[in-house]
Amino acid sequence: LGEEQGRRRSRLPTDERREQLLALGLRVFVERTYDEISIDEIAREAGISKGLLYHYFPSKRAFYIAALREALRQLIQETRPPEGAQPNLEDMRRGIDAYLGYVERHARAYVFLMKGGLGLDPEVQEIIEEAREEHLGRLLTSLGDPSEPRLRIGMRGFLGFVEAASLDWLERGGVDRAAMCDLIMEGFLGLVAPWVAPPSP
Amino acid sequence: LGEEQGRRRSRLPTDERREQLLALGLRVFVERTYDEISIDEIAREAGISKGLLYHYFPSKRAFYIAALREALRQLIQETRPPEGAQPNLEDMRRGIDAYLGYVERHARAYVFLMKGGLGLDPEVQEIIEEAREEHLGRLLTSLGDPSEPRLRIGMRGFLGFVEAASLDWLERGGVDRAAMCDLIMEGFLGLVAPWVAPPSP
Repeated sequence: LGEEQGRRRSRLPTDERREQLLALGLRVFVERTYDEISIDEIAREAGISKGLLYHYFPSKRAFYIAALREALRQLIQETRPPEGAQPNLEDMRRGIDAYLGYVERHARAYVFLMKGGLGLDPEVQEIIEEAREEHLGRLLTSLGDPSEPRLRIGMRGFLGFVEAASLDWLERGGVDRAAMCDLIMEGFLGLVAPWVAPPSP
Repeated sequence: LGEEQGRRRSRLPTDERREQLLALGLRVFVERTYDEISIDEIAREAGISKGLLYHYFPSKRAFYIAALREALRQLIQETRPPEGAQPNLEDMRRGIDAYLGYVERHARAYVFLMKGGLGLDPEVQEIIEEAREEHLGRLLTSLGDPSEPRLRIGMRGFLGFVEAASLDWLERGGVDRAAMCDLIMEGFLGLVAPWVAPPSP
């Protein structure tokens, strides 16, 4: 009330501030890659001091990791099938379309990450791996016995298919999102065909 | 002739010495990961001075990169279909089996690389990318118009499928190499089905 903008901003409750900073992180790491942005710029864009930023995130790496974690949480959320629904192709198609929409909106960040950005960082690997495990778990439980090695390997392969195809699509284009969605669905059906409908003898 | 072993070794012709060192590189980087080995150990195992090693490769990174280049040259070589043969499924299966054999023999190095080892190094990315492009080119020319975006994206996806499935297989096992070969062939046939035999209306 009547306070000067800068001071009001610096008095936000901790959680709200953290959320705001993460939203900013999602934006800046999509527009520029990790190496292209400094902690000073982040603080400036957030309208807070570097000291306050460090209070929330002790380093640029920590800030990036928190933003990545938030980004993948959103991705998992947006691609989630409806609660309690039996696995079906329509929900799967919706999930794939949501995935493609998400990676399209975050194209630079996705390409950076998939091409090994911060590749040696075990925490980054772990976060990406967790997201893959979540998607893998959904696929496996919708298809059958999750402990069956061929199914596990095949679905891991399918995730690799989606990632590699998406990366090529983002970098070189040539088809629209609907056609990409068809391509991935066809790929899925082709890949899982041996499991859902065993070849006749 | 009659020379002391150490001296004979240090008088090898340049090319031969370089080849020997690369062969050693392939071996050490398969047994241990990049971070686990020092340039001193490499020189010791090669039976030459660190100075002479540096004469051939100015740094551990340069040595690793040369060994990686050699490894992927071998992989490309071993998976190559017979000269002049029309594309056919039998040769493709043989190529996939050779690929699986190769990654199995180099499992630690493959897992290290695929999980982002030296991920930020643009030269490493470039070498891996070149090998992918070679495989992609083979697939595309055997399947049809290489400039067709859906085909390109689909086959890029297929390479991602092979890499991700192989990685999971190497890390968690559960099936033998013949079953892996079946799985990848089935995946390929499922993926390319929409192109080689358009779905009936």
